[in-house]
Amino acid sequence: MRNPLLVPDLRELIHGGEDVALREFLVDLHPGRVAEFIEDLPDGDGDTVFRILEPRERAEVLSYLENDEQNRLIESMPPKEAADLLRVMSHDERAALVNRLEEEFVDEVLPNLAQAEREDIRRLAGYEPGTAGAVMTTDYVTLPPHITVREALERLRHEAPDRETIYYCYVVDHSRRLIGFISLKRLILARRSAVIEEIMQRDVIFAKVDDDQEPVARTIDKYDLLALPIVDVGDRLVGIVTHDDAMDILRREQTEDILKFGGVAPDPEADVPYWQSTVLTTVRRRIKWLMLLFLAENLTTPVQQHFQWTYGDQKMPALALFISLLTGTGGNAGSQTVGTVIRGMALGEIKLSQALLVVARECLTGLCLGLMLGTVALFYIHFWRDQPWGVSCVVGFSLFGVCMWANVIGSLVPLAARRVGIDPAVVSAPFISTLVDATGMVIYFTIAILLLGLVK
Amino acid sequence: MRNPLLVPDLRELIHGGEDVALREFLVDLHPGRVAEFIEDLPDGDGDTVFRILEPRERAEVLSYLENDEQNRLIESMPPKEAADLLRVMSHDERAALVNRLEEEFVDEVLPNLAQAEREDIRRLAGYEPGTAGAVMTTDYVTLPPHITVREALERLRHEAPDRETIYYCYVVDHSRRLIGFISLKRLILARRSAVIEEIMQRDVIFAKVDDDQEPVARTIDKYDLLALPIVDVGDRLVGIVTHDDAMDILRREQTEDILKFGGVAPDPEADVPYWQSTVLTTVRRRIKWLMLLFLAENLTTPVQQHFQWTYGDQKMPALALFISLLTGTGGNAGSQTVGTVIRGMALGEIKLSQALLVVARECLTGLCLGLMLGTVALFYIHFWRDQPWGVSCVVGFSLFGVCMWANVIGSLVPLAARRVGIDPAVVSAPFISTLVDATGMVIYFTIAILLLGLVK
Repeated sequence: MRNPLLVPDLRELIHGGEDVALREFLVDLHPGRVAEFIEDLPDGDGDTVFRILEPRERAEVLSYLENDEQNRLIESMPPKEAADLLRVMSHDERAALVNRLEEEFVDEVLPNLAQAEREDIRRLAGYEPGTAGAVMTTDYVTLPPHITVREALERLRHEAPDRETIYYCYVVDHSRRLIGFISLKRLILARRSAVIEEIMQRDVIFAKVDDDQEPVARTIDKYDLLALPIVDVGDRLVGIVTHDDAMDILRREQTEDILKFGGVAPDPEADVPYWQSTVLTTVRRRIKWLMLLFLAENLTTPVQQHFQWTYGDQKMPALALFISLLTGTGGNAGSQTVGTVIRGMALGEIKLSQALLVVARECLTGLCLGLMLGTVALFYIHFWRDQPWGVSCVVGFSLFGVCMWANVIGSLVPLAARRVGIDPAVVSAPFISTLVDATGMVIYFTIAILLLGLVK
Repeated sequence: MRNPLLVPDLRELIHGGEDVALREFLVDLHPGRVAEFIEDLPDGDGDTVFRILEPRERAEVLSYLENDEQNRLIESMPPKEAADLLRVMSHDERAALVNRLEEEFVDEVLPNLAQAEREDIRRLAGYEPGTAGAVMTTDYVTLPPHITVREALERLRHEAPDRETIYYCYVVDHSRRLIGFISLKRLILARRSAVIEEIMQRDVIFAKVDDDQEPVARTIDKYDLLALPIVDVGDRLVGIVTHDDAMDILRREQTEDILKFGGVAPDPEADVPYWQSTVLTTVRRRIKWLMLLFLAENLTTPVQQHFQWTYGDQKMPALALFISLLTGTGGNAGSQTVGTVIRGMALGEIKLSQALLVVARECLTGLCLGLMLGTVALFYIHFWRDQPWGVSCVVGFSLFGVCMWANVIGSLVPLAARRVGIDPAVVSAPFISTLVDATGMVIYFTIAILLLGLVK
């Protein structure tokens, strides 16, 4: 989408002082694209582009810029101009922005705003991070129940410029309690003389202000809503969460799952951007998992020690060579299964009632995979690694058993986690690998003893 | 949101034959909730609820039901009634539905539709899966450039019931080429006598019909659009992709990343639901990765073999016991790092130009983690596992080295993958574990030789 060819032209307009031509060029662009140009231009030129815009255009462009860039642009403005910008910004974004700005600068800017606006910013900034309150906005449209469609449309025309969305209108009673909603589509289709109360939808899907942001976003996704109304403890409407914010929340939550799957403990402090967390926080978040896995991995040593007597046998040193190969492959097969099962559950394809079927299916898959890998290993170890058939057979058979076993574990564990109410994504790939490591060795040594006829 | 308490009441209404009360109850609910009730009720009762709805309500409810349930409900209808339903369904969904229905049933239903509708279904069903064409819908609103706002609003009132969204209107010339767009918000705000051409936005963000669905969805997400217009090779408007479909695509693509991260080869056939893929397909998708990792894991054997001479030394059998512990922990640390780096790149927090900084930071993190784990291992192995200090030191120091090394590899590899244009999510946790296994052993044996003074 980005067109780097235009940047030199833009710089020519800026340095030639051709403000009219520059405005004309910018005004027709999507604000997201203007933001891209500002990012691509050197700071000074970017500032010129930003300054030439009207406050309302600036507010829109700002919402597509990185947080750091937003801070920089705002803080380089005179307080009065900054206040004009805050006034027309979407309410959730300006609250977040004020939270990030230097306190001294905020103290200069806020007195330029009306009392109601200052209070709105303070209220929104006061909600617990990660709740619906913290991500909602207050620039929505409300309608009283008794007016006609004609009056409602007139009101919309009046209020539209200041509202983030006018496509859903919320109907509230005299104490701001949410009693219905009506989409602009339905308004446009209705008779002009109809009364809102008669045509509004009474079954409104809503959330509470201190609900967690993730289920709120999921509700928006599930019912394909443009926005979800948020009410306080008295069922009064206090804000809406819009579909684009829901998308951002879901994206963050899902990439969070990658971390869990890689074995990084989920951070209760919500997600901190990569560069904003210190090495120390990172270490704290990771060491929990590593310690836990380290302790589990230690099970491998007693297992090996238990079978240490076989070291006296001449065939055993050769067998020891293939332990890593065996446990590594088992861990890999297990990771695959756990990934597949977690995904199936996340998409709602796998239900808990189907647990037995899933385990059976993964066991069968492991059987096929083990058969192939075991056969390859058998020949590979005999011919390439110059080991006797006995050793090759032990490794081959063990691989077969370990693959099947790893698949069963890899499907059983996330299903069991869900069953007892733990997030299955916490059952990470490393966890399964570690679990398979110790048990895989038992399979290996047992087969070795049976097949090579080793006796104590 | 779901209220199981209502199900018994609903069943009473159904079995009492109180159709009027039932309709009154249903008509005010969000279609997504009606769908939930149908899912919760026994099949027969669910059918009664579905049958009592008008075709347009049925179409909306249907879109919230599982595919299997959609097929069942439609195929139990007389062909004429099914055709009435298809007529009012959103165009993308009906094309997908027809694709899934029994061929014989489709042959009975389609003749009941007008020629234009049959062609629309055929065309939409014909696009390559995974492209913009396959997910777009054709029920959008177009406006000619020369009409006034008043005329445009009149047209919208007329067309709204049949359109999936009326909040964005696309302006096309006489040969259907996309020349602009206007939001309903802007239309409502404009003078009634203004001409569309004068107030429309000319910088339209669009995609091509054979573009991959993922970048299309990302564009919708990035620019916070309600819908993205799709054009054919002649720049003619042929459809739109809506924000809720984009959300579904992104959710699927991101859960796809979990699979890749678990080491399952990405399926070029797009993503098949868990229960619809056969065990054989699953095996085919997984064996590629397992074989590759198996071959890589085989590197551990030659490494061990290379150091096999140390087996003659009496201290070596004890050292062999801790190989799994060491490589396992290294793999876990590497998985954590690769997870963190992939996530940072996915969210745009880590840029390629910062690669050196990232590697340095992860190396430092690995140093801290290694210091802690190494110290724990040192005492654990000496006191609990009854090994001499020499062995404990070798394991402790090696853990330190392996953690740092695994973190460097875990950050370097996804960054390098992105650099050469490979999806970093393909650099899965098992891949890093396997890579660390062989190199970790080299570190281990080298430290052992240096520390214990073993000489060939």
